[in-house]
Amino acid sequence: MTIPHPTGVHPAWLPPAAFRAAGSRRVLVLADEPTTAHGHTPAEGTAPTQGAAPADGAALVATVRAEVAEACGRHGGAVAALGQACDLVLALTSARALPPAAEAVRGPEIGPEGFLLGRQDGVTVVLADDPAGLLYGWFEVVRQGEAAFGPAGDHAPEAAPPAEPHRPELEPTEPHPPALEPTEPHRPAQRPAEPHRPAQRPAERHRPALKRRMLDHWDNIDVHPVMGQVERGYSGGSIFWRDGARCADLTRVRAYGRLLAASGINAVTVNNVNVHATEARLLTDRLGEVAAIAAELRPYGIRVHLSVNFASPIQLGGLPSADPLDESVREWWARTTERVYETIPDFGGYVVKADSEGQPGPFAYGRSHADGANTLADALAPHGGVVHWRAFVYNHRQDWRDRATDRARAAHDHFAPLDGQFRDNAILQVKHGPMDFQTREPVSPVIGAMPGTRLAVELQVTQEYTGQQRHVCYLPPMWSEVLGFRFRSEDTVADVATELVAVSNAGDDPYWTGHPLAQANLYAFGRLAWAPRSDPAAILDEWIGLTFPEAGEALRSTLHTMMDGSWRTYERYTAPLGVGFMVRPGHHYGPDVDGYEYTPWGTYHFADRDGIGVDRTRATGTGFTGQYPEPWSEVYESLAECPDELLLFFHHVPYEHVLRSGVTVVQHIYDTHFAGAEEAAALRPLWEKLAGEVDPALHARVKERLDEQIRCAEEWRDQVNTYFLRKSGVPDARGRRVY
Amino acid sequence: MTIPHPTGVHPAWLPPAAFRAAGSRRVLVLADEPTTAHGHTPAEGTAPTQGAAPADGAALVATVRAEVAEACGRHGGAVAALGQACDLVLALTSARALPPAAEAVRGPEIGPEGFLLGRQDGVTVVLADDPAGLLYGWFEVVRQGEAAFGPAGDHAPEAAPPAEPHRPELEPTEPHPPALEPTEPHRPAQRPAEPHRPAQRPAERHRPALKRRMLDHWDNIDVHPVMGQVERGYSGGSIFWRDGARCADLTRVRAYGRLLAASGINAVTVNNVNVHATEARLLTDRLGEVAAIAAELRPYGIRVHLSVNFASPIQLGGLPSADPLDESVREWWARTTERVYETIPDFGGYVVKADSEGQPGPFAYGRSHADGANTLADALAPHGGVVHWRAFVYNHRQDWRDRATDRARAAHDHFAPLDGQFRDNAILQVKHGPMDFQTREPVSPVIGAMPGTRLAVELQVTQEYTGQQRHVCYLPPMWSEVLGFRFRSEDTVADVATELVAVSNAGDDPYWTGHPLAQANLYAFGRLAWAPRSDPAAILDEWIGLTFPEAGEALRSTLHTMMDGSWRTYERYTAPLGVGFMVRPGHHYGPDVDGYEYTPWGTYHFADRDGIGVDRTRATGTGFTGQYPEPWSEVYESLAECPDELLLFFHHVPYEHVLRSGVTVVQHIYDTHFAGAEEAAALRPLWEKLAGEVDPALHARVKERLDEQIRCAEEWRDQVNTYFLRKSGVPDARGRRVY
Repeated sequence: MTIPHPTGVHPAWLPPAAFRAAGSRRVLVLADEPTTAHGHTPAEGTAPTQGAAPADGAALVATVRAEVAEACGRHGGAVAALGQACDLVLALTSARALPPAAEAVRGPEIGPEGFLLGRQDGVTVVLADDPAGLLYGWFEVVRQGEAAFGPAGDHAPEAAPPAEPHRPELEPTEPHPPALEPTEPHRPAQRPAEPHRPAQRPAERHRPALKRRMLDHWDNIDVHPVMGQVERGYSGGSIFWRDGARCADLTRVRAYGRLLAASGINAVTVNNVNVHATEARLLTDRLGEVAAIAAELRPYGIRVHLSVNFASPIQLGGLPSADPLDESVREWWARTTERVYETIPDFGGYVVKADSEGQPGPFAYGRSHADGANTLADALAPHGGVVHWRAFVYNHRQDWRDRATDRARAAHDHFAPLDGQFRDNAILQVKHGPMDFQTREPVSPVIGAMPGTRLAVELQVTQEYTGQQRHVCYLPPMWSEVLGFRFRSEDTVADVATELVAVSNAGDDPYWTGHPLAQANLYAFGRLAWAPRSDPAAILDEWIGLTFPEAGEALRSTLHTMMDGSWRTYERYTAPLGVGFMVRPGHHYGPDVDGYEYTPWGTYHFADRDGIGVDRTRATGTGFTGQYPEPWSEVYESLAECPDELLLFFHHVPYEHVLRSGVTVVQHIYDTHFAGAEEAAALRPLWEKLAGEVDPALHARVKERLDEQIRCAEEWRDQVNTYFLRKSGVPDARGRRVY
Repeated sequence: MTIPHPTGVHPAWLPPAAFRAAGSRRVLVLADEPTTAHGHTPAEGTAPTQGAAPADGAALVATVRAEVAEACGRHGGAVAALGQACDLVLALTSARALPPAAEAVRGPEIGPEGFLLGRQDGVTVVLADDPAGLLYGWFEVVRQGEAAFGPAGDHAPEAAPPAEPHRPELEPTEPHPPALEPTEPHRPAQRPAEPHRPAQRPAERHRPALKRRMLDHWDNIDVHPVMGQVERGYSGGSIFWRDGARCADLTRVRAYGRLLAASGINAVTVNNVNVHATEARLLTDRLGEVAAIAAELRPYGIRVHLSVNFASPIQLGGLPSADPLDESVREWWARTTERVYETIPDFGGYVVKADSEGQPGPFAYGRSHADGANTLADALAPHGGVVHWRAFVYNHRQDWRDRATDRARAAHDHFAPLDGQFRDNAILQVKHGPMDFQTREPVSPVIGAMPGTRLAVELQVTQEYTGQQRHVCYLPPMWSEVLGFRFRSEDTVADVATELVAVSNAGDDPYWTGHPLAQANLYAFGRLAWAPRSDPAAILDEWIGLTFPEAGEALRSTLHTMMDGSWRTYERYTAPLGVGFMVRPGHHYGPDVDGYEYTPWGTYHFADRDGIGVDRTRATGTGFTGQYPEPWSEVYESLAECPDELLLFFHHVPYEHVLRSGVTVVQHIYDTHFAGAEEAAALRPLWEKLAGEVDPALHARVKERLDEQIRCAEEWRDQVNTYFLRKSGVPDARGRRVY
C-alpha cells in the first residue's frame, strides 16, 4: 500500500502539511490480529458477511499503517512498537494487548466505523472495533492537528465522560515531542505556540449517523454529444474514464478515495444514472473496469456501486422483455449479479433511474416501482448488496397549458402508496426537494411519507443550478436546513434517512472541482453525512484549516467571509422567493426568466402583468401542500404563514403582496437582486488582498472564476429586474437603474 | 457521359416521365464543331479565358447528347442526324449547317447561357451561342413538355417576334409523332389529348437575368459537435462528405448538378462559410476533394467555389499574420490560388465570412473589408475567379441593455462607406434583409447603397427560421417581394444585383430536402435567379408538373392550395408584424418569445406591459430608417405609413395601437395566430385526400411532417398568445382560448 500523490493535482484537504501534528509524533498502530470485523458498512440483505472480501479489514489496517508511516517519515515522527513510548495509539479493541493509556480510554460499544478518541497520560488514543473506524480515527486526529494532542477545545465529545483530574504534560525527555525548534522537516516554528498541553482528555465517541455516505458520479465512458463526459460536470472529464476506456493510471482514483475517506464517505457510484449503451456494459463484459476502480477505492473503505439500465435484460441479455416479474428476467438479474460478485466480492449494489426522463422502467410492463426495485434487490440480497432506486419520476413531457399537473407532486404520488412494499435492501433515493436541486426548495414530502421504507436523501454537490463551480456557493447551510427539517415530531430528515447520497462535483480538473473553493462542498458533504447536526460554519473552518494549513488569520477569516453566506448571496441574485429555475434551458447556467416557462418540463412561474408564483394550495391550486403532514400542510397552505423564501413555490401572489419581511414581492425582487450582485462584487477585493497568501495558480484560478461570477450576477440582476419592471410596471422604490 | 440516377434517391423535378414529350420525338443535336465559346459564365478578372478548361464546351455538348439519347431511348424517340426528318433541333449558332427550321428561328444576339426557342415548319428549335445555352434550352423543352411541340400557351416570349401565319401540323406519316396509341414505352395515352398542334411558334429568347446563380452549401467535412455535418441543415448529412472523407460514390453529386442545371443554377460553394480547421484544408492538401466534386458538376455547367478562412495564411501557410496588405500574405494567397487553378482550371473562386460571428477578418489588422476582399480578388483575378465577400458583419456580443446599438444598422455602417473600393472580381454578398433570414424583414439598405460595387443578394433556401423543412413554407413569394423591391427608381433589387446566391437546403436525405415539398424552394430559387420577375405561383405549377408528371388535377390544385400561401401562413403563427426571432435559441426551431430577448445577439422585441417593437426611427430610435433613400426613409419612419407587416421592425407601439388594417396590435397577434394555426391544421385533410395520388412513401413522409407542423403551429399560437395576454392583460376580443 502506497499513499497516492498524483502529480499535477491539488492535494485538496490533505496537503502534506495537514499531517504535521500527527506525523511529528511517535505513533503506535495496534491491529496485528486478522480481524473478523470487515472494513465496510455491514450490508443489508440475507447474507451480510458475504459482501466483504476477507482481506478488506487487513487492507484497511495496511492503509492506516501506510498513512502513519508516510506522515511520520515526512514530519519527523516515528512508528512505535508495542512497549515503546508513544504519543498516539491507534488500536483495534480486538488487539491482544493494549497499552495502559488505551485501556483507560476503552469504553462501551463503539460500533461499525466508529472510534473513541481520548487522551490519557499524555498519549492520544484512537480505539475502534473495526479497521474502518481506525482509519476514520486517524483522519480525525489529522483533522484536529495539534489540538488532538492538546486541550479538548472545540472538540466536544458526543457523550462526555466524567471529568478527570489534570495530568502532567508529556515528558520533555521523550525523543519526538512537539518542539519549538525550527528544525526541518516538520517546521514547528510555523505552528502557533501551545503553552498548555494537557495530558488527558475525556474520550469522545465518534460514529457515523448514517451508515452509507455515498457519492454518485454522473460519469460517462463515452463523451456524450450534448452532456459531455461527466453529465452536469463542471470539473473537466472523468477521473475513471478517458477516450472511451478506463484511465490507465488510476493513482488519481486512489487519491480521490483517500480524500473521501478523510471526509467520511464510504460508497461511490461510478457511472451516470442515465446509462447509455456503452456504459450499460459495465455490468457485464466491461465489469473489469469497475473492478479496477473498486481495487483503488477499497483500501480507503469505499465500496463501489454501479448505475444500471433497467432494460439491461433486453439490451445486454437479449431477452424479449425487462418485465421485473418475468421469471427469466429475474433469473437474468440473479445470474448477472452473481457474476458481478465473483469479480467484486464487496460490490455495493445498483443504482437505478427508471421511468424517468426517458429511461426505461417497470411502467412499460404495468408493474410498480416496488416490483422493479425488488427484482434487483432480490438479485443482490444473497451477496449483501443493495439497490438504490431513485424516486425522481415525473412526466417530463408535460403540457405547460395544463395547470392541474404539478411536477412537485409526482414523486409523492408515485411512491408514497408503495411504502412498506420495498425489500430491506431496496433503498429509495429521494432528492431533497420535490423539484430538482433548485437553490431553494421545500423538503420533499416523500421523505416524511415513507416510514416503512429505507430512504436515501439525495443532495447535489455538483452545482448544476447553483453556479456550476464558476460561482462561490458553499452549500452546507442549505443542506443543514434540509437535514434539520422536522416533518412532525422530533425526527429530523437526518433521523428519517438511512443514508445520504450526493452527486459528486469532482472531475479530472487539477483542483478536482473546477472552482478550488468548491472543494469545500465535497468535503462538507462527507462531514455532514457523518454528523448531520454539525455546524456548516465549523465545517468550513475545518476545511480551511486543512486545505490551507499555513494560512494566517487573514486568509482564514477572508475565506470564511467569502463562503459562509455565499449560498444566500447566490439565492439573492437568482430566481426569487423559491420559484426556481429561470435558468437557460439545456445547460442551466445564467438567467433566462422565461426559459422554462413554456416547456414540457413542469417548471413554471406563471408571471403575468399582475403577479407571479405557483398556486400549490389545496384550496385553489394543485393541492401539493396536502402532501405534507401537519403543521406543514397548514403552514405552506397559508399565505400568512408560508415562509417568505418559499412563498412563490406555494402561492401565486400579486406583485404588491407584502411579504412577512414588510416589503412587496416586486420590491423584494429588486432589493435582493441589487444586494446579491453587490455581495458578489464584494468578493473580488477580498480575494485580491489574498494574492500573497495562497499559491499563485490557485489564486489566479479563483480570480478568473470570481470575474465570471460577478459578470453573471450582474446579468442575473439586470435580466430579472428588467423582466419584472417590464411586466409589473412598478418602478424600484429606491430609483436604481433597471434597464 | 452517363446520366446519373442514384439508387434510393427521389428524382425530384427530373423523373423519367418528365422527359416523355421530348423523349418521344426525333431529336437532332447540332454542335459538332469544337467551339470557342466555353460552357461557363464568362469570368470576371483580367484573363477571362483562362478560367475555363478547353474541354468544358465539349463536355456540355456531350451532356446534351447523353440527355437526348437517354430520353429518346426511354420514351421511344430517336436521335436524328443532319438531313433526317426531326421534331426537335438543338443547335449551336456556330454549327456549320443548320436545317431550314433552325435558320428561320435564328435571330439577333442570344448571349451567354441563353437560347432561342421557337417552332418552325412543325419543328421545335433551340438555338444557342454556347453549349451552356444548349443545355438550358434542352431543359426548357423538357419543362414545357408537350407544350414545346404545341401552342405557345402561357410561354410568352421575352421579346415577341412578329406573328407568323399558322402552318399545318406535322405530317402524320412521320415515324415518331406524338401518337394516341397506348404503346409502351412512352405511354402517350396518359397525356391529355392535344387536338391542335401548330407547326410554328414565335421564337422566344431566354437568357439569365443574373450571370451567376449560386448555391452556398454549409457542409462540413467533420460532424460539428453542435451544428452537425451540415450547419443549419435539415436534410440529413452532406452529399459531398461522409465520415470525415469525401463520399466515395459521387453519383449523387452529379445528379444534384443535373437538378440544379435544370433549374438554372450555375455555381455551387461546397463548404460551410464557418470554415473550421479540417475544412480549411480543402484549399490546400485536401483540394483533390474539391476537384472531384467539380468533375461531377462540370458536365452540368456548374462551377465550384470554396469557402475559405481569412486566417488561412496563418493556419495553413504558417505565416505570422493574415494582414491583407502584408506582401507575404498577398503572395501566399497568389501562390495558393495558382495551385488551385492548376488542379481545377474552371474553379469559381472563394467565399469569405470575415469578422463575423467569431470568424477572423481584416479588422484584426486595422484593415478595411475592401482591403481584405481585394487581396483575395487580386489572387483570383489572373485566373478569372471571383471572391464573394459576405457583408454579414455585426457585433454578436452586444449588450442587451444597450438600446443604441442596432444590429440592423451594422452591414450598412460597415460597408456603405466602402462603395467603389472593391475590385471588379470582388462581389459583396448581402443577405436580403438587415438581420438574418427572418420570416419577414425589410430589404437590406446595403443593396441600395452600393452602386459602385458588384452585389450578390443572398437568400436562404434552407428553412432555418421558416420551419426547418418540417413545415410547408414555399418561400418564393417572399423572395419575389425582395427581388421586386425598388429603392428609388425603376431599378428593382434584381436589377441592382449582379448575382443571386442562396444557402442550399439539400442533403443526403432520400428526398434531398427532408420535407419533399421543400424541393420546390430549391427548384424555384434557380428559376427566380434566371428570371427574377417570374410569378412564384407559376413556378410552383411548373414544379408540380415536373415532379408529379402523372398527377391529376386534384393533386395539382391541392398542392397549389397547400403551398402557394404557406409562407404567409407560417408568418401568421410565428413572430408578429416583422419583429422577428422569438425562436428557441441555438437550434432556432419552435417558439420562445423571450428566447433572444436578453442575449448578446442584437435580436430584441422590447415587449413590456404597455407595448412592443423596436424603435428604429431617426426621431427617437436607432436611426436605421435613415439608411434608406427616399421614399423609404420616410415611409418606414412614419408610424402612419409604415406597412403593417414591418411595423414592429421599425416602431415600438402600444398594444392598443391601431394598424392600417383597422385592428389593434394585440388583437392582430391573437387573430393571426389563431388563423395561422387553423390554416396549418387545414393542410392535413387536404393531404390525406391525396393518399392514392402520390407514392406511398412520399405521402407518409409529408404526412409525418404535417403532423409536426400542426403541433408546432399550435405551440406557436398558444405561447405567443399567452405571452401577450399575460403581458398586456388585454383579452381576445373574440373570446377564444388563451392559456
